[in-house]
Amino acid sequence: MEQNEKFIGVFDSGIGGLTVVKSIVRSMPNENIIYFGDTAHVPYGTRSKEQITEYVLKDVKFLSIFDIKAVVIACNTADSIAREKVEQLYPLPVFGVVHPASRKAALSTVNNKIGIIATNATVNSGAYEKAISAINPDAEVFSVACPLLVPLVENGRFIKGDPVIETVVGEYLAPLKEKGVDTLVLGCTHYPLLYDIIASLMPEALIISSSDAAAEALRTGLEEKSLLNSVSGGERKFFVSDSAALFEKTARIFMGENLGGTVKQVEIV
Amino acid sequence: MEQNEKFIGVFDSGIGGLTVVKSIVRSMPNENIIYFGDTAHVPYGTRSKEQITEYVLKDVKFLSIFDIKAVVIACNTADSIAREKVEQLYPLPVFGVVHPASRKAALSTVNNKIGIIATNATVNSGAYEKAISAINPDAEVFSVACPLLVPLVENGRFIKGDPVIETVVGEYLAPLKEKGVDTLVLGCTHYPLLYDIIASLMPEALIISSSDAAAEALRTGLEEKSLLNSVSGGERKFFVSDSAALFEKTARIFMGENLGGTVKQVEIV
Repeated sequence: MEQNEKFIGVFDSGIGGLTVVKSIVRSMPNENIIYFGDTAHVPYGTRSKEQITEYVLKDVKFLSIFDIKAVVIACNTADSIAREKVEQLYPLPVFGVVHPASRKAALSTVNNKIGIIATNATVNSGAYEKAISAINPDAEVFSVACPLLVPLVENGRFIKGDPVIETVVGEYLAPLKEKGVDTLVLGCTHYPLLYDIIASLMPEALIISSSDAAAEALRTGLEEKSLLNSVSGGERKFFVSDSAALFEKTARIFMGENLGGTVKQVEIV
Repeated sequence: MEQNEKFIGVFDSGIGGLTVVKSIVRSMPNENIIYFGDTAHVPYGTRSKEQITEYVLKDVKFLSIFDIKAVVIACNTADSIAREKVEQLYPLPVFGVVHPASRKAALSTVNNKIGIIATNATVNSGAYEKAISAINPDAEVFSVACPLLVPLVENGRFIKGDPVIETVVGEYLAPLKEKGVDTLVLGCTHYPLLYDIIASLMPEALIISSSDAAAEALRTGLEEKSLLNSVSGGERKFFVSDSAALFEKTARIFMGENLGGTVKQVEIV
């Protein structure tokens, strides 16, 4: 198999990374993708750095069993905390979500005030602040941890008009509105499902999806390395560490299509 | 050390089991308690049966390192799914939450309509239905899975007047109100924190906390086996599988007291 026809390995703590897969498929339909969701240990966003790193290294170890051409860390928490370790240990091109979204935000802001919404662990890591200031040292970054958004989205509460999600999102956005940010990063791969609600509550800001930004950066990166798949492929394999049926039930919301029967449960060690 | 002076081993998927500890301490202040919260794998309530069983057996294995006189499964999900396995593998008196709460509900109901609110895994297990019908075959049991209550409570949203928690709880209770249940079991150790909200939304029902019921049944069980600690003790040790600091931050809400500095992180295998 030619190098460029190989699979891209994508992983996430669970199901949110499917929004990245969706963006990749839209942008590069030929790419063959292996997805791993660590559903036995989801969520990562509320855990400690050490614990997250341990789980991430197991995720990549699993993906590296396959002969993949690149790794995509499709989870802001994992990318914030453990990216360097992954790059140290695996001789593969590693793509993520934090750097692409940071770059886009750093170059788009006009008033140099950028808001980040993300999990506790991503916010505490300071990864977005670091990545943004490396590109635009004048930018001020305001981060808000939003621990309730993942469970709310996973329970189907992302529909405009639902007072529960609108109240919670409104509370999380309030300090960012007050700071006057003109750019807002959705720093968790679950949040693209909240795009409409966030956009209507914050019409003054440019909203950047880390999932879309990740797919764009992946495309550029593969092009540069002549690794884009020009052959018609588009094969996709999904693996999870807990029940495949439980995953398939929620997957449709994130992928916009049914994964029925294509998901396999594996044990990672 | 006399048998009755030994520690009671209590475990939960994370932090909710502290409401059981609180009830035990109130009822039996002399008891020495070792608590284990499996915070590296929390939550259990959204996972598969197989995965939950695997984690529970590791939890009990950890507790059994200590010379304990009894095990308390302070998690409705764990008790619903894996209790029999624990009893098969460990020659210790095993106490739980499901049977005590079921017994109380089965004997308290007047119109024989009982409501259960719990996690997805507890509801899917049918454990409450089975336990209640064994005591009161005439009782009809109506169960509602409430996956959002654990994250809401853990994020401090259990205060009366908060429209988010009141809306969500109201939605979950609506089908039970419609069925006319006169008895409602709080089938998750997080839910005692929602007692006031639930009681005000459902004033017609007797509300049974599985945490209180568990402590009462434990007391009776220890008395019967002459295992109650008559010596002034009250020592408590807390262990978790992820960061102790993260656990201590939330523990106060559940225990009603600070655990500052008494929590240790361990690895379970």
